[in-house]
Amino acid sequence: MIADADSISLRPVLPASAPPPLLYADTERSADALYFGRVGVPDPFLAFGARGRKCAAVSVLEFARVRRESAFDLVLPLESYLEKARRAWPRRRVGAAEVMILLAREQRQARFTVPADFPTGLYARLRELGLGLVVARGPLFPQRAVKTAAEAAAIREGNRCSACGLAAAERVLRASRIRGRRLWYRGAELTSERLKFAIEVACLEAGATSINTIAAGGDQACDPHHRGTGPLRPHELIVVDVFPRVQATGYHGDMTRTFLRGRAGEAQRRLVAAVRAAQRAALGAVRSGTEGRAVHQRAVEVFAARGYETVQSGGKAAGFFHGTGHGLGLEIHEAPRLGAGADAPLARGAVVTVEPGLYYPGLGGCRIEDVVQVTAAAPRPLSHYSYQWELR
Amino acid sequence: MIADADSISLRPVLPASAPPPLLYADTERSADALYFGRVGVPDPFLAFGARGRKCAAVSVLEFARVRRESAFDLVLPLESYLEKARRAWPRRRVGAAEVMILLAREQRQARFTVPADFPTGLYARLRELGLGLVVARGPLFPQRAVKTAAEAAAIREGNRCSACGLAAAERVLRASRIRGRRLWYRGAELTSERLKFAIEVACLEAGATSINTIAAGGDQACDPHHRGTGPLRPHELIVVDVFPRVQATGYHGDMTRTFLRGRAGEAQRRLVAAVRAAQRAALGAVRSGTEGRAVHQRAVEVFAARGYETVQSGGKAAGFFHGTGHGLGLEIHEAPRLGAGADAPLARGAVVTVEPGLYYPGLGGCRIEDVVQVTAAAPRPLSHYSYQWELR
Repeated sequence: MIADADSISLRPVLPASAPPPLLYADTERSADALYFGRVGVPDPFLAFGARGRKCAAVSVLEFARVRRESAFDLVLPLESYLEKARRAWPRRRVGAAEVMILLAREQRQARFTVPADFPTGLYARLRELGLGLVVARGPLFPQRAVKTAAEAAAIREGNRCSACGLAAAERVLRASRIRGRRLWYRGAELTSERLKFAIEVACLEAGATSINTIAAGGDQACDPHHRGTGPLRPHELIVVDVFPRVQATGYHGDMTRTFLRGRAGEAQRRLVAAVRAAQRAALGAVRSGTEGRAVHQRAVEVFAARGYETVQSGGKAAGFFHGTGHGLGLEIHEAPRLGAGADAPLARGAVVTVEPGLYYPGLGGCRIEDVVQVTAAAPRPLSHYSYQWELR
Repeated sequence: MIADADSISLRPVLPASAPPPLLYADTERSADALYFGRVGVPDPFLAFGARGRKCAAVSVLEFARVRRESAFDLVLPLESYLEKARRAWPRRRVGAAEVMILLAREQRQARFTVPADFPTGLYARLRELGLGLVVARGPLFPQRAVKTAAEAAAIREGNRCSACGLAAAERVLRASRIRGRRLWYRGAELTSERLKFAIEVACLEAGATSINTIAAGGDQACDPHHRGTGPLRPHELIVVDVFPRVQATGYHGDMTRTFLRGRAGEAQRRLVAAVRAAQRAALGAVRSGTEGRAVHQRAVEVFAARGYETVQSGGKAAGFFHGTGHGLGLEIHEAPRLGAGADAPLARGAVVTVEPGLYYPGLGGCRIEDVVQVTAAAPRPLSHYSYQWELR
């Protein structure tokens, strides 16, 4: 899945000497909270570091499970601290802020680093109550961008699930019959919705949840975040982008293939060949120390050399108008980015998607996406699926 | 699905005269952003009110789609404003803050209200750049707690999907054969994972995505947020909690039934009857003007009258140790709450779950959950499924 404008992302600038982290978030919304505690918690909870230990305060609904399954060294019962807070501040309605003050005192930790997306209301209240807080100017955990062997394996597993989704889509397309301008599958017209259903069931079977799956044909695919709706047509490019989350680990896969059921025309063939060539060129440039924008530039050059122009004004765009890739892990879009504004050198161990695309209303869209891990030499592939796209 | 400690939630105190809202969030993480713009945007974007109009700045990846499908009156191209910001602040890396300053000037709106969960880093930078910001002390959109007829219909549709999931679970359980201490389904032992797969496929078929589905048997179900893992046993209570999100609208269903495949013992029968009686009593108390805690108290009284004790200390708990229900809508857990600390009177039109439960390791857990809309008289049911639980 394509990332948004990379210029809005921030660079890692958290010094090693920074105070320990403090989070208040649920693990569905906050990858940092999941990274820190390695356990799923569906409601916001307090998690923090104190003198080298990872600590959390969770409700009775989570307590036993979090103590059993998480990476926290110390799991504290929220309700007991709420009770203490009510006694300490008898005149006000107490909440996460007052509980945190008690925990900070108890753990003798006076200062914390909070992520840039820490909730403003809680931040203000904690400051009012005298806690020392530093806002991280980059990622709270810059090390999240560098994947361990276990994390790379979890992402490879995510891409195995993505590939199961792509295979399901290909099977449905191959089994669909062409009748004039329609595709017919198991007694009914083939739609984006039916194709996405087949993909999402295949992902579930593989152990992952795929939401917002893209299966968009024709001009719909030229709107890169259009998920696709209504009938899919024969002889038309269909972009299939599958980015499921593995249920057991929380890590994602993210792969895209562009298919066509029927016979491709010359312009479609040239388009797909150009995207594949751009992807190869960009993949060839991925290496530790290289800037993300240099990888992106390789894809841009391939398109320029083949005469594919990019036009962009006032929200309308055609050609190649998104970044070449993005980091992948507990979030679908994370650091680092491979785009025009990405001036940070790639770190060894970073995992990125490489997904150039071309989009021309009238002709259609094509995107091809794989995932690799950065090394000092050729990148290590973490995704595998055939590139055969014309399904006659 | 059971909500966390309600004492942490905040009461609506945003005055009607407050400045218009400003949000920076994606619509997967922020229900406020989805409520405001009525369109899905997968990456964080700027959305705000200005002189009575809803405005958004989105990237070229979203522009056409958001302009076509959203409730925004004004959709602006992010990239053009980033370009202007680069010219205005040539010496620094510009981002969402600088873009927002330009937008605020252009729309002649100097002050905004941000939600309590607005990102602290962006808040600080916007203040530094001179924007007037008020942090909402309660929900940004208190009206989200009162559902329109269309919203109630969307939630009813969510519960139709939940019921499809429950029906799938019941079908699998009925089709499973009892062999000693095992359940056997289609040639393999029945596990929580297989039951959840059947539920999640049924939800997809119905048009909704169910994540973190709970299908937990025996003592696992006494850990109320344990999703369930490994073999399910005959003659054992199995809690099935399904809270899918409808793909077309973003609204949720949330229903729970407790099943038992085989023959129930006397203690299990008494437990289930007590939970159902508590649910009926609580449902009978739901009415506009009644405090949430009064509804909760009715369930507590039924359990006390039948001799079910609740014990809770230091994170360990048995009996009835969670709230009776929570608001449901674009979020699974939202206002209002039905729990011991919920002292706000229920508003007409609010939609709440009613889900008492009892949990005793050794005996098992039982929870029964339905959804109703608050009226001035008996609440309007928004969920429907049989209460037959013993599947012989």
